[in-house]
Amino acid sequence: MRESELHAHIQTRSADLTRAFPRVLLGPGDDCALVRSSGDLLLTVDQLIEGRHFVPGTPPDAIARKIIARSISDIAAMAGTPVWALATGAIPEGYAHADELFDAMARWGRRWGAPLVGGDLASVPAGTPLMLTCTVGGEPHPARGAVLRSGARVGDGVYVTGQLGGSFEHEDAAGGVGRGGGRHLTFEPRLDEARTLAGVLGDRLHAMIDISDGLGRDAGRIAAASGVRIELDGASIPVHPGSDLRGALSDGEDYELVFTVASGAHAAIPALPCGVTRIGRVAPGHGCIVAGVDGTMKDVAQMGWDH
Amino acid sequence: MRESELHAHIQTRSADLTRAFPRVLLGPGDDCALVRSSGDLLLTVDQLIEGRHFVPGTPPDAIARKIIARSISDIAAMAGTPVWALATGAIPEGYAHADELFDAMARWGRRWGAPLVGGDLASVPAGTPLMLTCTVGGEPHPARGAVLRSGARVGDGVYVTGQLGGSFEHEDAAGGVGRGGGRHLTFEPRLDEARTLAGVLGDRLHAMIDISDGLGRDAGRIAAASGVRIELDGASIPVHPGSDLRGALSDGEDYELVFTVASGAHAAIPALPCGVTRIGRVAPGHGCIVAGVDGTMKDVAQMGWDH
Repeated sequence: MRESELHAHIQTRSADLTRAFPRVLLGPGDDCALVRSSGDLLLTVDQLIEGRHFVPGTPPDAIARKIIARSISDIAAMAGTPVWALATGAIPEGYAHADELFDAMARWGRRWGAPLVGGDLASVPAGTPLMLTCTVGGEPHPARGAVLRSGARVGDGVYVTGQLGGSFEHEDAAGGVGRGGGRHLTFEPRLDEARTLAGVLGDRLHAMIDISDGLGRDAGRIAAASGVRIELDGASIPVHPGSDLRGALSDGEDYELVFTVASGAHAAIPALPCGVTRIGRVAPGHGCIVAGVDGTMKDVAQMGWDH
Repeated sequence: MRESELHAHIQTRSADLTRAFPRVLLGPGDDCALVRSSGDLLLTVDQLIEGRHFVPGTPPDAIARKIIARSISDIAAMAGTPVWALATGAIPEGYAHADELFDAMARWGRRWGAPLVGGDLASVPAGTPLMLTCTVGGEPHPARGAVLRSGARVGDGVYVTGQLGGSFEHEDAAGGVGRGGGRHLTFEPRLDEARTLAGVLGDRLHAMIDISDGLGRDAGRIAAASGVRIELDGASIPVHPGSDLRGALSDGEDYELVFTVASGAHAAIPALPCGVTRIGRVAPGHGCIVAGVDGTMKDVAQMGWDH
């Protein structure tokens, strides 16, 4: 791969970007991109590393989808709307799919409203893991503003979207997506769901996070940031078919939303196609506790992933 | 290194960020950062890879300085002002300086007005190269706007700041900066110089780029983007002491500015402490040509670095 050839390809592919996305004033090809911005800006960046976040041999489209979707999910966790993306790739010499990979990243960015306006490419020695990063900028919900981790209050109900656990298993129903398949490669960031929750609940939506490292650890992060304790009912946690409570608490990479809602606002929570389940409450104290059906209590804030 | 401990350290170190930088509404610690933005946004991202952009054993402060400075230099190349930064690190297991490295990145970001508002960390197997990225957002010059590569016009003069060549050599005068030292680790991004040029020259400053891959290649990029030919006078190119014309044309990583100015505006170009030298002119055609003192002409648009 010659960097200049790949750059030329990227510029050709991006030629319609300023027409398709009026807020993009200048796309790839100069020292910086230029984007119209009209207010507060949400910013996030994530990495994706071969051998850690995906196995060697994963199809380029699945790799591209995941690196974009992870950052989009961070925007969703604040109830925001993605506006632009930047990407980097450290590409091992001899890797044959660089064009395909960056085309796919651009396509997935557009899909979620975040056109790829720039990036950086470098080749690394063969044998080095393929490494990608994606930075996404977005705007907060126009009425609710950004929903932080730190807004949970004692008395809130704790909720989760979808079902949890087993995100690295093949989905039998879908037939998997090839080697290393599973929901961690195919999840749909909860952008629409988050905006619906923020729009309907407004200030009654107190705190939110997406589950990247496991429900226990990520709910624990809301608890820590808010200075409260989160108590989960083990029996009410929605477990993905084929997984179990332990998987639902600790597998990570579900990219579902955990959020807390003011007491008394339960009936106002909108129905979502992915499902919303009440799984616990916010109490004084600290940590994230799960009560089992046998009455046992377990602190799960340190479960899940810590790399 | 436990990621959660490093995260905690980063949050503690960032506690004063919202006070020190009023446009930072939310720093590290949530799913996204939140920054106040008031208009158009310049965006750039760069990578820094051990073994390619710095040699193993380079001091963490020098590594941190370079990854931040490269992106800041991209903002300078558009005559912009940096506002915020995001960083990622893929840290080999057993690397003992992760805290120090991220502290230094935050310090250098602040130094150039781009506080580190967020990032992502991952550990990679020992033996993998250390890899960093830095995304910087900035704002265009309030009067001139963003200065692109594509604005050069036939008849323009071509200018360069500072002196070129030998950026990977130890600087004898400074005593070097340790193993792998040299100006590529210690250069000062030409932020002030670019803003001064844009402020004084206004629309007469037609095109600009920073030299990352060598004068020949980067001036060639202005020529290609503008649909013109750039003709350089070999004898007038300012060569750094210890280097030569070939080094000045192709060494790369000088991070000086090359810019073109409307014909007739030569006398309006402000004096800069780093020096400004007229090195050529913009002509019809394409490519970047150097005329030697012996009358030879050489196309240098493909010299320099193409990785």
